[in-house]
Amino acid sequence: MSNQKIPVGILAATGAVGQRFVQLLVNHPWFEIAAVTGSARTVGRPYGEGVNWLLDGDVPENIARMIVLPTEPGAHLDVPVLFSALPTAEAKELEPLFAAAGYAVLTNASPYRMDPYVPLLIPEVNPDHSQLIPYQQAQYGWQGFLVANANCSTTSIVLPMQILHQAYGLESAVVVTMQAISGAGYPGVASLDIMDNVIPHIGGEDGKLETEPRKLCGRFAAGQIELADFVVSAQANRVPVIDGHLGSVSVKLREKATAEQAIALFQNWQPDPLVRQLPSMPEKVFIYRAEENRPQPRLDRNAGNGLAWTVGKVRPCPVNHIRFMAITHNTLRGAASGSVLNAELLVLQGFIKDRG
Amino acid sequence: MSNQKIPVGILAATGAVGQRFVQLLVNHPWFEIAAVTGSARTVGRPYGEGVNWLLDGDVPENIARMIVLPTEPGAHLDVPVLFSALPTAEAKELEPLFAAAGYAVLTNASPYRMDPYVPLLIPEVNPDHSQLIPYQQAQYGWQGFLVANANCSTTSIVLPMQILHQAYGLESAVVVTMQAISGAGYPGVASLDIMDNVIPHIGGEDGKLETEPRKLCGRFAAGQIELADFVVSAQANRVPVIDGHLGSVSVKLREKATAEQAIALFQNWQPDPLVRQLPSMPEKVFIYRAEENRPQPRLDRNAGNGLAWTVGKVRPCPVNHIRFMAITHNTLRGAASGSVLNAELLVLQGFIKDRG
Amino acid sequence: MSNQKIPVGILAATGAVGQRFVQLLVNHPWFEIAAVTGSARTVGRPYGEGVNWLLDGDVPENIARMIVLPTEPGAHLDVPVLFSALPTAEAKELEPLFAAAGYAVLTNASPYRMDPYVPLLIPEVNPDHSQLIPYQQAQYGWQGFLVANANCSTTSIVLPMQILHQAYGLESAVVVTMQAISGAGYPGVASLDIMDNVIPHIGGEDGKLETEPRKLCGRFAAGQIELADFVVSAQANRVPVIDGHLGSVSVKLREKATAEQAIALFQNWQPDPLVRQLPSMPEKVFIYRAEENRPQPRLDRNAGNGLAWTVGKVRPCPVNHIRFMAITHNTLRGAASGSVLNAELLVLQGFIKDRG
Amino acid sequence: MSNQKIPVGILAATGAVGQRFVQLLVNHPWFEIAAVTGSARTVGRPYGEGVNWLLDGDVPENIARMIVLPTEPGAHLDVPVLFSALPTAEAKELEPLFAAAGYAVLTNASPYRMDPYVPLLIPEVNPDHSQLIPYQQAQYGWQGFLVANANCSTTSIVLPMQILHQAYGLESAVVVTMQAISGAGYPGVASLDIMDNVIPHIGGEDGKLETEPRKLCGRFAAGQIELADFVVSAQANRVPVIDGHLGSVSVKLREKATAEQAIALFQNWQPDPLVRQLPSMPEKVFIYRAEENRPQPRLDRNAGNGLAWTVGKVRPCPVNHIRFMAITHNTLRGAASGSVLNAELLVLQGFIKDRG
Repeated sequence: MSNQKIPVGILAATGAVGQRFVQLLVNHPWFEIAAVTGSARTVGRPYGEGVNWLLDGDVPENIARMIVLPTEPGAHLDVPVLFSALPTAEAKELEPLFAAAGYAVLTNASPYRMDPYVPLLIPEVNPDHSQLIPYQQAQYGWQGFLVANANCSTTSIVLPMQILHQAYGLESAVVVTMQAISGAGYPGVASLDIMDNVIPHIGGEDGKLETEPRKLCGRFAAGQIELADFVVSAQANRVPVIDGHLGSVSVKLREKATAEQAIALFQNWQPDPLVRQLPSMPEKVFIYRAEENRPQPRLDRNAGNGLAWTVGKVRPCPVNHIRFMAITHNTLRGAASGSVLNAELLVLQGFIKDRG
Repeated sequence: MSNQKIPVGILAATGAVGQRFVQLLVNHPWFEIAAVTGSARTVGRPYGEGVNWLLDGDVPENIARMIVLPTEPGAHLDVPVLFSALPTAEAKELEPLFAAAGYAVLTNASPYRMDPYVPLLIPEVNPDHSQLIPYQQAQYGWQGFLVANANCSTTSIVLPMQILHQAYGLESAVVVTMQAISGAGYPGVASLDIMDNVIPHIGGEDGKLETEPRKLCGRFAAGQIELADFVVSAQANRVPVIDGHLGSVSVKLREKATAEQAIALFQNWQPDPLVRQLPSMPEKVFIYRAEENRPQPRLDRNAGNGLAWTVGKVRPCPVNHIRFMAITHNTLRGAASGSVLNAELLVLQGFIKDRG
Repeated sequence: MSNQKIPVGILAATGAVGQRFVQLLVNHPWFEIAAVTGSARTVGRPYGEGVNWLLDGDVPENIARMIVLPTEPGAHLDVPVLFSALPTAEAKELEPLFAAAGYAVLTNASPYRMDPYVPLLIPEVNPDHSQLIPYQQAQYGWQGFLVANANCSTTSIVLPMQILHQAYGLESAVVVTMQAISGAGYPGVASLDIMDNVIPHIGGEDGKLETEPRKLCGRFAAGQIELADFVVSAQANRVPVIDGHLGSVSVKLREKATAEQAIALFQNWQPDPLVRQLPSMPEKVFIYRAEENRPQPRLDRNAGNGLAWTVGKVRPCPVNHIRFMAITHNTLRGAASGSVLNAELLVLQGFIKDRG
Repeated sequence: MSNQKIPVGILAATGAVGQRFVQLLVNHPWFEIAAVTGSARTVGRPYGEGVNWLLDGDVPENIARMIVLPTEPGAHLDVPVLFSALPTAEAKELEPLFAAAGYAVLTNASPYRMDPYVPLLIPEVNPDHSQLIPYQQAQYGWQGFLVANANCSTTSIVLPMQILHQAYGLESAVVVTMQAISGAGYPGVASLDIMDNVIPHIGGEDGKLETEPRKLCGRFAAGQIELADFVVSAQANRVPVIDGHLGSVSVKLREKATAEQAIALFQNWQPDPLVRQLPSMPEKVFIYRAEENRPQPRLDRNAGNGLAWTVGKVRPCPVNHIRFMAITHNTLRGAASGSVLNAELLVLQGFIKDRG
């Protein structure tokens, strides 16, 4: 890397996910926030005035002074990389236009996650799926490209699933999630709905949990992603927890394995060597905990600066083969950070060019 | 029934479950509280002074004045029926002694639930299991008898399981529960442990969820209970909810059925005609809800005066056959009320004699 | 009373407060719901379909089938009495039109609470203020009339204040409230704002707490209400509690009194004999609790069917004279029930005519 | 400072406050943990095994391996400084013995806070009160000494009170606190008591809030502390918040001041120059926020690494002169960190000797 940072923009920077992008990028060693966009209400005002800051502490001073730009593909944002925190409908309309216009678009939005030419990327799970990028550019005639990160609840459970899948082959998984309120954005879940309560429904989430893992654990070959041949059944629940999506998973394997083998596998697993070099990568990104009462959202969501998976309760399943529970921090790992890590990976892989 | 009420005693009446017994029995049409027992700290004091009342409103006045008696088998409690809210260790030691001494003991404790001669009874699930009582008396040489109600989380999920089992035969069930803090008694769960958190462990609960349904759904034949031949895999979680145990269940059936069939079955199900005559029985004890975001603890736990099951989210399971969610109120239906309903059933069945 | 019930209408019956009106009036001994109005979204549909029911249990069946009418003064609602759950802006515009058109309008909205010709009425606090009604009608040329109930947080603290004021004269009160999320309506407070948090601001609430008690404790004389001559300083806070507004009050009295005197006063206080005849009036509407850790929202908000005040922590104030804490249930006592009780009082006082 | 760190011990290092000491001291620039003591249950075991770690992340590795020592004055702990997280009764008995034996004891316990010879010290409030130390040693014949930090709720409100007191003279303060559950230690508050609730009582807290500020804001003169001549009235409440004690304060001043003057005073206030040199001192330790809905526990408790005061809602009080709200993080600032900051101050003042 040269010493010069790569300027980046944040689309919809004033929302809940956008704020996380600001927080994550403000002191990033490789990237530098050079543009923030927002809705009509905030355009033209300093970011610090337009934003309803939801995170700890204050808006970083230099960002607070930046003038919010409109989110228009023709806005000629002078940055090569865009992090998109756009809501679903706008993401669907605008992200292809930005990609066509030459930007590297890293999105947290869902519309193109299952598009056969858009990599659904998690560096620790499927770093090689970025090979889809040139095929995407050829297919859609784009100068830039679009890379998506996974749904935050999918993220929580997919890495341990992939580890087992690569070792033993996954046949099926029965999943129940207990998801944090911050996953619904702001204002999101009404307190009258969730205090002293569980809501056994999150719109569209069961479907994402049942399909995204098949793409993430799929195989890149001949210019496309072959979906993994396992079946997932999911029940997503909202619980009165601020951050951290916890998932309970029971898996059937193609090649039977014991809980001891699964534990050993989890204890020794390491991400790809290239992935270990990502500047945001924590020292330990996949943590196995042996205590019978872990993982817990409040105690484990911040592991590895909020970027790590924590897995526990690994034991034989009387019905299938193995049961386990996994957690990640949904707004740190699941959303904004997922895109930042993807951008870092794409720099190392040469898809995003260094300024040097 | 004659007009005269049957006098009953409550063992460990000052604890959380004991208080519910008081609340449920104070205006009961058939039973009348005639004795309350407690620990050394409270013995000899009026109940109203010894109790740390946790429920809405005040201690019922006439009970508040009753003197707390010691929980000793030799205490010569002048009642034919005892409701036991004893903690596990004391229940294990004392309940057989009370049963031997001639009392009809209705217990909420766990030690004898899986005893082959103790009926594990839920009127709506297995009213015929009370036939085990004479065999119990013969086997153990008891004058009285002991009948247990199920664990509160088992209760939440077992009735819909039994309905499906009786119609199609159950092969297996993958269960995840989200259980209320009141299930742990008082003081129970520390607020520092559960606020903004989920604890994926409740001591012994997974095992109870995996074994009790097999007995409850078993068949009485030739003086014993034949365990049902299905397998359950369970993961119990504590969530920040005050009351109401919610369970997510994915079942594989022996005879395949569609979600529509299961829904029709649930909508039309009625308990046994004798069971419908129990005085505490609500008009509708098994409720199917079609809304995609039900059942919810806060909205559904009080259905049928807290005695009803509410079931929803019935849909095809991509991995097994049917997925559903079920809830009951853990301290009302799961514990104290379970025993009161059992006592009512035993009166109708003639096992508890009317005073008339 | 004749045996025939008085037909009543509910304005904005589908909202949170409107639902409480439905719940309270559905089995009322004197009133009968004969009309429900709603917003454009729900007009013309059965109430049960248009409403997002937030309360325990189901929508009462007969109300569920009623067709929602538009909230227009010219709607010719065939009822003499209207309960208004209208939001502030609509209440401001429409309530005078309904009053002019001959309806007895009982409102929970704030715009006219401090209007010098509108009684701000709480039966236990100032039942004689209804004498203002003929002066209102003369002043505004209305056929009907408008009576307001107080803000729910004012309600919580004003009865003990009035009791002390009538006995010793109040000079000043320093008030801090801890208010429930249900006070903000639905969706109201975002869970991300209030979980694990306190919000020290509720728009306009400090002002209401500082002015409304002066009118409520004022004196009716010569066709107007003379405001009480005490000063209130208030800080309203939102806390993570579902129902029940708790207030901490430190008062300076004109005639000094001891805490013992205040306690004796609270213990012996009874509402006006006429007020005791209201059919919704609980047996004990003002409860003094001596325990050092009461009142508490969850334990005391439902006292007297949610209609009672509970007061405790009465003790000397080192700075002023007396300190105490008081609670009422904000959606039961503070809002809908406040209006229902006012209507009952107005029937007994002859302002609302019996059908007989 | 020399490069060599000062070895310190932590008494009762396995409890909630003790764990905070470990967290704060493990990478401290001046101090080095050289001894940890615990109860009989943990003595002789590695700290990492004996502790039920309640904080984020893992037990620091080097501390996890330390063997827990008994908390006995005769244990010959080879450190000059002891941080005491002892519970009240043990603190009362043991701390004087440790002080007598030559240790500099920095305690978070309450027994000696109001002792006329023990400095109750908060560096930003009363750094000169350490001058009491030689008088303490002379009076009690101790080789070492004892310095206490204030109760965590007192801490939250006392700095803005002192700032106003020094500028205008305080005459009285009416205080209501909303305190976090972590203030009660572990297991502390039962979740059944505090979920969806407020408890208007914390044993002994009202008294501490009424007396400690008078000592903290008092004047050192002629070998003793003259208590400040103002009166405080306090009502402490427990609310469902994990960390952060929020206080609402209404003050009467001797010399009247406007809210604008108070705001200007708060905005410009700086601690004593010596205090600004403490290594743990955040850049901004006293923060005024102008937003109408701040301070809030979740948003402001972590300001300045959890060490800062945040004050807001400064406005005229209709009854007294000024109203404001203040918050600090109770376990960071209020307890462990309070003692660490005191130790840093005592190093700079020469009461704790550098190893150099």
